[in-house]
Amino acid sequence: MSTINDVARLAKVSISTVSNVLNGRTGQMSEATLARVERAVEKLGYRPNRAARQLKTGQASMIGLLVPSLGNPSYGMIAREIEEDSWRRHGYRVVVGNTYRDPARERAFLDDMAAQGVRGVIVISSLADESHLEAPVKRGLVAVSYDSHSRRNVKPIVDYVSADNAAGARMAVEHLVAAGHRTIAFLTPKIWTFSRAEKREGFLAAIRAADAQGVVIEGNVAAGYADAEMAELGQSLARPLIRHKSRPTAAIAINDMMAIGLISGLTAEGLEVPRDMSVFGMDGISLGAFTAPPLTTVKLPLPELARTMVDRIMLRLKKPDTSPAEFRFAPSILVRGSVAKPAAGR
Amino acid sequence: MSTINDVARLAKVSISTVSNVLNGRTGQMSEATLARVERAVEKLGYRPNRAARQLKTGQASMIGLLVPSLGNPSYGMIAREIEEDSWRRHGYRVVVGNTYRDPARERAFLDDMAAQGVRGVIVISSLADESHLEAPVKRGLVAVSYDSHSRRNVKPIVDYVSADNAAGARMAVEHLVAAGHRTIAFLTPKIWTFSRAEKREGFLAAIRAADAQGVVIEGNVAAGYADAEMAELGQSLARPLIRHKSRPTAAIAINDMMAIGLISGLTAEGLEVPRDMSVFGMDGISLGAFTAPPLTTVKLPLPELARTMVDRIMLRLKKPDTSPAEFRFAPSILVRGSVAKPAAGR
Repeated sequence: MSTINDVARLAKVSISTVSNVLNGRTGQMSEATLARVERAVEKLGYRPNRAARQLKTGQASMIGLLVPSLGNPSYGMIAREIEEDSWRRHGYRVVVGNTYRDPARERAFLDDMAAQGVRGVIVISSLADESHLEAPVKRGLVAVSYDSHSRRNVKPIVDYVSADNAAGARMAVEHLVAAGHRTIAFLTPKIWTFSRAEKREGFLAAIRAADAQGVVIEGNVAAGYADAEMAELGQSLARPLIRHKSRPTAAIAINDMMAIGLISGLTAEGLEVPRDMSVFGMDGISLGAFTAPPLTTVKLPLPELARTMVDRIMLRLKKPDTSPAEFRFAPSILVRGSVAKPAAGR
Repeated sequence: MSTINDVARLAKVSISTVSNVLNGRTGQMSEATLARVERAVEKLGYRPNRAARQLKTGQASMIGLLVPSLGNPSYGMIAREIEEDSWRRHGYRVVVGNTYRDPARERAFLDDMAAQGVRGVIVISSLADESHLEAPVKRGLVAVSYDSHSRRNVKPIVDYVSADNAAGARMAVEHLVAAGHRTIAFLTPKIWTFSRAEKREGFLAAIRAADAQGVVIEGNVAAGYADAEMAELGQSLARPLIRHKSRPTAAIAINDMMAIGLISGLTAEGLEVPRDMSVFGMDGISLGAFTAPPLTTVKLPLPELARTMVDRIMLRLKKPDTSPAEFRFAPSILVRGSVAKPAAGR
């Protein structure tokens, strides 16, 4: 069996150059050098023995990623950013797990990761209860929790990386109030998560500050979290929204998928968006550009969020003494076409 | 350090019960047994030493999954199915890689998988050239290629699992012809893949069989394959479609994302779908339910496709003598609301 030395000798490069190629660090490398190393690896059938290295260090060159469902484009898009970042900048691959927000599935995934030598995990869960993370962290897991935050008076055991959800909701309200809306609905699933609670609080605070009227309309998400529950919920809330006795002229949906469903539901009810109802999303996924009209929304800084999560995992894997910390990023408003002045007479 | 024996003794169960819990095979297990094993694992801080097992067998309990981009909901949805199937039915986790259809990225991923002891990979790529799979397969990789097929007179080295794309295109044409359309457009990106070529051939054959008029409208996909290129392309083809001298009354988009963009583009041009133009998608992703009008489409049997791919990987990992084979699944028509009779006078 050939070794990394054989590869370096055949390719006429240093061992560290071979190592760079094997770990995907080829940014500074000439095409010719890269090609030579690849040919040598090929010719010798060389395979770096990571299993042995893993046994020695107890670590695989992988991180774990838990998402509610890759079928939901919001999570698909952040998963893509994380994988890209993790591999391109650190040479780490990503093991992914769908949890459907089920704590038992999250726990099973974390146990598997530990067993397979994966020591860093990004948890996109928004489960209000994070107690299932305690035991894996005690056993050495390095975890980042997305879109959640630390508890008052509790020393954090994981990093928290999130957007400022309350600010996002406030920005949406302010934008709608500036457009002339006085009665604004906030559409949300009943299931309580940190980020949803923050958005709701931000919404209510901004409504009070603007001396406007706020209406919270809740709905149940269909069982079996998979692809399109959020859009279905948005669709089903079109009717309660239209018929609400306060007659809201605008609606903020708690995420873009729900806003996409809401526009579809309003259109099916014979309303025209934004003429008859303004709709505001929260996320900034690219799909929002293809509704009719295109969705105005609160845009999350996805690349920054992804990069921060990956960097924190890598830093804390290398320097286990680093204390977990909290990172919060400001969202922005992405104006497309789903907001207008309220119709006269409403 | 505690062993699986210690866990079994403390939980008062057999070693194989502990193993079942650790591998996620808990379907037939009582809640009480599961809880007892979990408490014992917890209390003893037990970690099955898979790195050691991996070194012995050379295999991790993981499979690899290559997709063009998780940001594209079509791939997010099939990735979700594969992960669910792989874990629930086989206890295998999924390592995922975005390739943006770049052969160098595919190769780097396959090399990494080999180095990390991952021996089975599902390749969702549709790159017409699969030569980069040869070397990894020679070194022992078990691969399934999705939405591609074997070459005439070439012994296949990977499994091929796909939908019958030509049949799907034919079904769409027949559906439109039955609705009264005589001039039908086929919208596709210029990049050539197996499945796109098949759809195009199926379209042209069905047009000939129906003695109708077919119009192929091609466009360039934006550089930097990521989330929404297909939808953007569909959007940008609305105008060439409307202005085409043959005046097509219906359009088949080569995938749902493109159809979603096309509906958005047609609406922006002041047309009403399906009154002024019928639109047909191909995929059956759940997002198609939320366009206005909802998208009529060719639906792929995604669960069957995913299960077959996962099962083939598992079978060939266990029985390396099994020859690669080809599997093809019939699509079906999903009627929603984007097809109508052609407008009088067109």
